[in-house]
Amino acid sequence: MGLIVQKFGGTSVANAERLRNVAQIIAETRRMGNQVVAVLSAQGDTTDDLIDKAKEINPKASRREMDMLLSTGEQISCSLCAMALESMGVPVVSLTGWQAGVQTNSAYSSARVKKIRTERIQSELDRNNVVIVTGFQGINKFGDVTTLGRGGSDTSAVALAAALKADLCQIYTDVEGVYTADPRYVTGAKKLEEITFDEMLELASLGAQVLHNRSVEMAKKFRVNLEVLSSFAKKPGTKVKEVAKRMEKTLISGVAKDKNVARLALVEVEDKPGIAYQVFSLLGKENINVDIILQSIGRDGTQDISFTVRRDDADQAKKLLEEYKGTLGFDHIDVDKGVVKVSIVGAGMLDNAGIAASMFGALYDADINIQMISTSEIKVSVLLDESDGNAAVQAIHDKFFGE
Amino acid sequence: MGLIVQKFGGTSVANAERLRNVAQIIAETRRMGNQVVAVLSAQGDTTDDLIDKAKEINPKASRREMDMLLSTGEQISCSLCAMALESMGVPVVSLTGWQAGVQTNSAYSSARVKKIRTERIQSELDRNNVVIVTGFQGINKFGDVTTLGRGGSDTSAVALAAALKADLCQIYTDVEGVYTADPRYVTGAKKLEEITFDEMLELASLGAQVLHNRSVEMAKKFRVNLEVLSSFAKKPGTKVKEVAKRMEKTLISGVAKDKNVARLALVEVEDKPGIAYQVFSLLGKENINVDIILQSIGRDGTQDISFTVRRDDADQAKKLLEEYKGTLGFDHIDVDKGVVKVSIVGAGMLDNAGIAASMFGALYDADINIQMISTSEIKVSVLLDESDGNAAVQAIHDKFFGE
Repeated sequence: MGLIVQKFGGTSVANAERLRNVAQIIAETRRMGNQVVAVLSAQGDTTDDLIDKAKEINPKASRREMDMLLSTGEQISCSLCAMALESMGVPVVSLTGWQAGVQTNSAYSSARVKKIRTERIQSELDRNNVVIVTGFQGINKFGDVTTLGRGGSDTSAVALAAALKADLCQIYTDVEGVYTADPRYVTGAKKLEEITFDEMLELASLGAQVLHNRSVEMAKKFRVNLEVLSSFAKKPGTKVKEVAKRMEKTLISGVAKDKNVARLALVEVEDKPGIAYQVFSLLGKENINVDIILQSIGRDGTQDISFTVRRDDADQAKKLLEEYKGTLGFDHIDVDKGVVKVSIVGAGMLDNAGIAASMFGALYDADINIQMISTSEIKVSVLLDESDGNAAVQAIHDKFFGE
Repeated sequence: MGLIVQKFGGTSVANAERLRNVAQIIAETRRMGNQVVAVLSAQGDTTDDLIDKAKEINPKASRREMDMLLSTGEQISCSLCAMALESMGVPVVSLTGWQAGVQTNSAYSSARVKKIRTERIQSELDRNNVVIVTGFQGINKFGDVTTLGRGGSDTSAVALAAALKADLCQIYTDVEGVYTADPRYVTGAKKLEEITFDEMLELASLGAQVLHNRSVEMAKKFRVNLEVLSSFAKKPGTKVKEVAKRMEKTLISGVAKDKNVARLALVEVEDKPGIAYQVFSLLGKENINVDIILQSIGRDGTQDISFTVRRDDADQAKKLLEEYKGTLGFDHIDVDKGVVKVSIVGAGMLDNAGIAASMFGALYDADINIQMISTSEIKVSVLLDESDGNAAVQAIHDKFFGE
């Protein structure tokens, strides 16, 4: 039929039984007449265990040696998976990142894929072999092992699918697909059959931890058809593509909640030009990303500037800005970590002005107060009190997806 | 001063503390003005743990995938050791077998080193780096990872020392060197300052498990100066070289005991030509090595043929020969697993006919009965009842090394 790249995450390959299950999925895909390239993460906690080992020896180990260490995790899961396939009589070969020709830049621990030399994989496919490739890793121009950072295996899979011009790239995970909201706490959450790359990007950055953003960006760029599905349930998942089919009346693709957020407020900032610029350049230099920004109208020669950052970054951001208190000229900084960001995402928004209003209406009906608002072409986000988070998602979801 | 290759075994790198100790030895060697290439085995039981993981998945896994799996063990120990050196401020880089240019043939699990392309190591040394290389592994012409089999890390170290024309190859282990007898049960056993390659080869094959034979053979061939020493005690070890200094009166280098031996006797074999040849070709085909052979003088048209094999091989040898009972024409087979082989080794024997006699005298004085005898140019071995083993070694050791 075609060439399919399948990626299996750490949970899917955590032990012998699950590795056998993965091998069965691969074998079944091949039996249907497909060529298969499978990309595997390290088993379960292997990577964290290796990091602990390193920390015990040297908490400030170089990234080069960390990559040398961590890359063993995928080599173990891949060779074991190949053995499972061998036991089923499936011809197979496992390849490390360097054997698979995954060339990266030299940014150890967070390398970017530059090019994939597919000769070896292609020759193994031509010999009728299933090819298992270690995710998360490659080789740089010095001949050293690099890793791609968190979510790197998704990126490896998409990069391989692009380089091999695969017909489909399936990302197997522990959820059955992308939902209209988190099914663990939203009643009536439905699995989406299809979703666009842009929607997926917004959802990923909003805390729907299904696919790593880098991989979706790459898939969009190289037009790789993605499918997110579960390695445990034998069901179709969610297809991620350029244009998604959607039922007429569902205007948005999903509702997402992101708890990793905090609100900072610079109170009584002197009302002089360039202050906002100064604040956000300072934060940017320290790699602190600012999301929603609200600048109050000036009064008595001062104004307030509120903005959100990742909750993990809040303390560092406060400390940094306080160092420049004199230059910036503000009275004090408020930090609120008890907030949550709730967002709706949908390509349909572009043509429908009433969507944001519907969302605000749902929150008003549920008696939920909105602190801040931010919008993009395919997204509306609101900042709420954390205690309102789940009720807000449910109310919005009912409004858009309710019967 | 020079270039030193240092090899550290699995016990020496078993945990964080021991890895730090190894890093200290390397750092100290470098501080003395030497360039250092260190070859490491996998930590402690890592290799066995990985083998267990593989067996759980597929007891008949291909050797190619086993090598892919097992080679991760050394990659872990080497990157961790590099991190330990980094924490001491020592410039260092760890290299896998393929990065270090260790090219082997394609016999997965028991590959032979064909050639080492030293460019990468040399350039790292030129940049003043300590180089840590994974032992036990290389790469074959297909670009696949191979392992060298048991004792492979010793072989890696010697091969690297030969290729780099190192001034010395130090094998760090958990004993302090090579002794005149096993110090665990022989009173007065002394560490040898020097020993010849040939003596070391005989001692290794006789059960003194200090160095792997393949590595000694290679060291002899390429004239690599070896030193066996402990990574725990800061003392000089034993030097293994072409010609060894020895005190005038010590005619032998050591007394060894090998319990992995069994005696088989074919009783009442028909006295016809070619029988011995048939017996030993049959065993040879099954890779059963025969050591001491004793053919009795024929009587009444029959004779007895006794020989020793490894104790592990005794049952298989008996079974095999019984299948050919008709062709070979013997009455029955006796198997005695309660025997032990005690040997003296020494290059000095070549010029001194009285040495074997001294050994037999020592055993006679201790009332120990000799069952079989075998001699080579630098070795005399006797087969004894197992219960006499330790007393025999002590008596012989006293005779040659006693005050």
